Amino acid sequence: MIKLVLSDIDGTITDGRRVLSSSASEQIRKVQEKGVAVSLVSGNVIPVMYTFRTYLGLKAPLFAENGGAMIDEKITQFFTMDKPLAFFRYLEKNGLARGIMTNQWRLCSMGFDLLGPFDGEISDLSARYDVEITDSGFSWHILNVGQNKGFALHYLMEKYGLRPEEVLVIGDNMNDIPMFVDGVRKAVPANAEEELKKRADYVARSGHGNGTAEILSSLESF
Amino acid sequence: MIKLVLSDIDGTITDGRRVLSSSASEQIRKVQEKGVAVSLVSGNVIPVMYTFRTYLGLKAPLFAENGGAMIDEKITQFFTMDKPLAFFRYLEKNGLARGIMTNQWRLCSMGFDLLGPFDGEISDLSARYDVEITDSGFSWHILNVGQNKGFALHYLMEKYGLRPEEVLVIGDNMNDIPMFVDGVRKAVPANAEEELKKRADYVARSGHGNGTAEILSSLESF
Repeated sequence: MIKLVLSDIDGTITDGRRVLSSSASEQIRKVQEKGVAVSLVSGNVIPVMYTFRTYLGLKAPLFAENGGAMIDEKITQFFTMDKPLAFFRYLEKNGLARGIMTNQWRLCSMGFDLLGPFDGEISDLSARYDVEITDSGFSWHILNVGQNKGFALHYLMEKYGLRPEEVLVIGDNMNDIPMFVDGVRKAVPANAEEELKKRADYVARSGHGNGTAEILSSLESF
Repeated sequence: MIKLVLSDIDGTITDGRRVLSSSASEQIRKVQEKGVAVSLVSGNVIPVMYTFRTYLGLKAPLFAENGGAMIDEKITQFFTMDKPLAFFRYLEKNGLARGIMTNQWRLCSMGFDLLGPFDGEISDLSARYDVEITDSGFSWHILNVGQNKGFALHYLMEKYGLRPEEVLVIGDNMNDIPMFVDGVRKAVPANAEEELKKRADYVARSGHGNGTAEILSSLESF
């Protein structure tokens, strides 16, 4: 029986233009009312997760910056800004990247828009700076090594004392892969990338938030 | 014909527990799709308004800190933090108030929880510090003089070049009164305070977000 749902936000509980899905929001609330913990994890910042927690009425902690920071009644920071900021400054100085608005609220990652095509050089450089880079579909993120959605998953499993088969993860994008681990139940909306569909136990008929609503409305089948 | 809707958030497009109303959100999007500008104004902070703007897909600027700061593609700050912070420090030092989580993201106001009953003394003191205090229903706010929802209303009317009768304001709480000005159309959900109901052109049959959805679905009648 599923006791925890951990879901991505962008493309998963939104539509393709990033607008929050009413059907997904309502299913999230219904699932929580049944006593299942519902958490969200995103590359976005703590005050954005504060807003989701407040205005969706969620009780579980939510994770910002791909798992690097957590909000419940207080804010917990698991990683530091040193390495992401150093790499961001390098990219900026060399005209390769431009910061995004949410950077002013970041604790342990930096977001950027690429100022040219993505090439292997940036990837090689990130290793030298001991950071990882991911593409959320809306912007690029610079993260500490190990700062990913799998970190959030394991934190919650330990907090609630859960076995993998009691957890359902939902995502659509390559940066959701670290929470698609063995034993955990995995579901994806129809817009998910192929690699996620391959690993999923269930692929929804609908895309985006409607697909996630479909998944959540049949939670007992997982 | 209404060309701009300016609405409060808490209690107005949420339910009584502050959870976002799906019916109000959907009507907001429908109204915007008809070409009407939709803006929100709240005592909450810029990154919370960033979240509403992004995840409701709103195009107009939104206002944080009761009108003191604005977000569209960038952030604009109309007031400073000096006076609110000075008064907050006084209250805190004297054991009268405790800060709230969102203060770390504030630009020109402070939020607090009262540590005792509200008495006239605090009100008298606020005048000496040249600030105003309001109760949002969720926490108290310290604001600069003139920093209120009427400021946001006038900014938008000037930006879009609107006459008062082309604007509909929606709110439920005393801190919405500064936008309930002469000539502007005013509507309130059924949970609104009596003073607002008295001034309103229309009182919805339903309360909270459902009442606001009802108002927005008959926009052509204003």
